[in-house]
Amino acid sequence: MLGYFEPPYYAVIFTSVRGGDTEGYDATAARMFELASQREGFLGVDLARGDIGITISYWRDLEAIRRWREQVEHLEAQRLGRERWYARYRVRIARVEREYGRDSPELL
Amino acid sequence: MLGYFEPPYYAVIFTSVRGGDTEGYDATAARMFELASQREGFLGVDLARGDIGITISYWRDLEAIRRWREQVEHLEAQRLGRERWYARYRVRIARVEREYGRDSPELL
Repeated sequence: MLGYFEPPYYAVIFTSVRGGDTEGYDATAARMFELASQREGFLGVDLARGDIGITISYWRDLEAIRRWREQVEHLEAQRLGRERWYARYRVRIARVEREYGRDSPELL
Repeated sequence: MLGYFEPPYYAVIFTSVRGGDTEGYDATAARMFELASQREGFLGVDLARGDIGITISYWRDLEAIRRWREQVEHLEAQRLGRERWYARYRVRIARVEREYGRDSPELL
């Protein structure tokens, strides 16, 4: 789980329900994490999977999110996601305004 | 997985790492979902658990979040969470500014 980031920053909340086709999914997911984590403005990612999958990536600003969304290899991964891997998905772009928790500066 | 909500609205992103003590957790989690879902301004919740747990609740405005945070039974659950169930946790309050996906109005 991630450390503290200084608000305001942005979260991309991706929720999904997988379809039957999983070919290539794990390798692409790992590659996308590798690529995203090298980008300017990338802060981190949280993910978990139960009945649905939740991936939250954190970014310094909207411009960093826009550039990542349009990165060539990521565009191809998004296309495969739509066509093969996800029965349903949803993307929410949210501005993080407050943050607190155990281990955060507010409690130290 | 959830339907479409009209932005702007708010997301409370709760990420956690569980500790060893899980007594009472499931019953309390179910009760909190029941209570939250009855509240004015509550829109829905997404959750998944892997190495970490992610629970995202969606709310119409900050006032609804504030009232829920201060609800008596919920205060007690938060205390138990801090003292017993979570080794680490983080809460992020975020304003959802855009939303899209398969099945959303933007794609219909």
